Amino acid sequence: MNKLKAALTNTADSVEVMLDTLLTPDSSTENRIYQAMRYTTLGGGKRLRPFLVKQSADLFGVREINALRTGAALELIHCYSLVHDDLPAMDDDDLRRGKATLHKAFDEATAILAGDALLTLAFEVIAQPETHQDSEIRIELVNMLARASGVRGMVGGQMEDLQAETKELNLEDITHLQRLKTGALIEYGCEAGAILGKASKEEREALVAYANDLGLAFQIADDLLDIEGNVEETGKAVRKDNHAGKATFVSLLGVDGARKEAESIANRAVGHLDTFDDRANLLRATAEFVIARRN
Amino acid sequence: MNKLKAALTNTADSVEVMLDTLLTPDSSTENRIYQAMRYTTLGGGKRLRPFLVKQSADLFGVREINALRTGAALELIHCYSLVHDDLPAMDDDDLRRGKATLHKAFDEATAILAGDALLTLAFEVIAQPETHQDSEIRIELVNMLARASGVRGMVGGQMEDLQAETKELNLEDITHLQRLKTGALIEYGCEAGAILGKASKEEREALVAYANDLGLAFQIADDLLDIEGNVEETGKAVRKDNHAGKATFVSLLGVDGARKEAESIANRAVGHLDTFDDRANLLRATAEFVIARRN
Repeated sequence: MNKLKAALTNTADSVEVMLDTLLTPDSSTENRIYQAMRYTTLGGGKRLRPFLVKQSADLFGVREINALRTGAALELIHCYSLVHDDLPAMDDDDLRRGKATLHKAFDEATAILAGDALLTLAFEVIAQPETHQDSEIRIELVNMLARASGVRGMVGGQMEDLQAETKELNLEDITHLQRLKTGALIEYGCEAGAILGKASKEEREALVAYANDLGLAFQIADDLLDIEGNVEETGKAVRKDNHAGKATFVSLLGVDGARKEAESIANRAVGHLDTFDDRANLLRATAEFVIARRN
Repeated sequence: MNKLKAALTNTADSVEVMLDTLLTPDSSTENRIYQAMRYTTLGGGKRLRPFLVKQSADLFGVREINALRTGAALELIHCYSLVHDDLPAMDDDDLRRGKATLHKAFDEATAILAGDALLTLAFEVIAQPETHQDSEIRIELVNMLARASGVRGMVGGQMEDLQAETKELNLEDITHLQRLKTGALIEYGCEAGAILGKASKEEREALVAYANDLGLAFQIADDLLDIEGNVEETGKAVRKDNHAGKATFVSLLGVDGARKEAESIANRAVGHLDTFDDRANLLRATAEFVIARRN
């Protein structure tokens, strides 16, 4: 676990530098929108998704800069989704990563535009030659990122989540919703590493299957944190889902049942990595980490 | 002018079919978000931006399907920008293209998500091989579209527009703002045609210069319509800028001055097309059209 934490910190540091560079305005551009984009993107977060890109890419000896740029683009998408999700018309949250949400710190219109700008920037970053010299690889990264983020991925999951407030979801519904809302970007992290590394079909499928389970275990742990965590550790409001009366893995399985399910799914995730040697050990440790985390 | 109108209608029809196809859900996806995306995208608009892609691409004998898909992607970006721009926290508009704005017809959260989904879908459409067989061309289309739509393009212009409510803009400021807010996507329309057609550097620059002036003339005409138009013809609220006390080309130049300026810029736009033969005649006519239009 210590090795994993060191590696997570390393990647988080490198991603921070990359994001800082990507979010530096040239002199002619409006400053306030950059301030907003930087406020919400820099200085926080586990950077789990870029870490998954990096670790998956490392299996195939991909150049670090390629993995970092792809991971940073994915993090831009993740950050935009949080900004829009926190808006008054959506989850109406005041606190994120221990500080005021973007629309609270700036204003609602700026938050909408900054989210749009982060989303758009992600595609620009991927499209640039620095991300990979081979345009075939870059265009596949764009295509898969758009699928993972859009209506058949994350945004589709957010829409299902909105509608969950008015209808009762069972375990199958929740699993489907979360596979889209949280799972799609986590899956993209591992798949992007495989694309960058020109992995074989089998290797790519193994990584996607791993990420699929990892995302689910991550989300069950999130539901447990919503019940058991506190605002100091998580840096965001807790017991929101409970108050909203939304079905979650915990409300459907109970605390103990949910914890057992998370462990079982995390084990299954690790099983998909059998095709890889010791170089996948940090990915294996990540599966333990996501269910043990406190934020 | 009659030839132009027929060509505009033709392209609008083809784009409608393409957008309908692109916005057809597969059976497993949430329906309400598709309904929202379809509501706001289908059945309206001049489709000027796809028309510019088509006409520019035609100069180089590009296959129609390639131009149509690229034009449809550009229209998705345009539609998303209108949805987010109409939100209560932004322009707070109730009427668009003669019907209720998306957040009025559905709800605010759905409008935010549908906008995000349209933006994301645009990049997915461009990235797919059907848009062009050459991945170099597709990735350049992605890169330029992201630049034109993002913080150094349209979103940057929207941000300047937000801030215009609290400071006084002169003619130079307004021109800069509008080149980003409206101009960037119009410019992309012509540049995308050049990219698809593997135009020479000179041809591409000529088209971009034309589009740059076209976008400006278009915006001045828009400001005139805001003063002189009526809600029946324009399908949206008028005299909004006037009420908001915002500086516009008309408030700075007067009605007659603004009209003369629009004519002069439209003429300049046509001048940039001298390098092209009669095949550019519809683009020439477009410059007249954008300043004579009533909606």
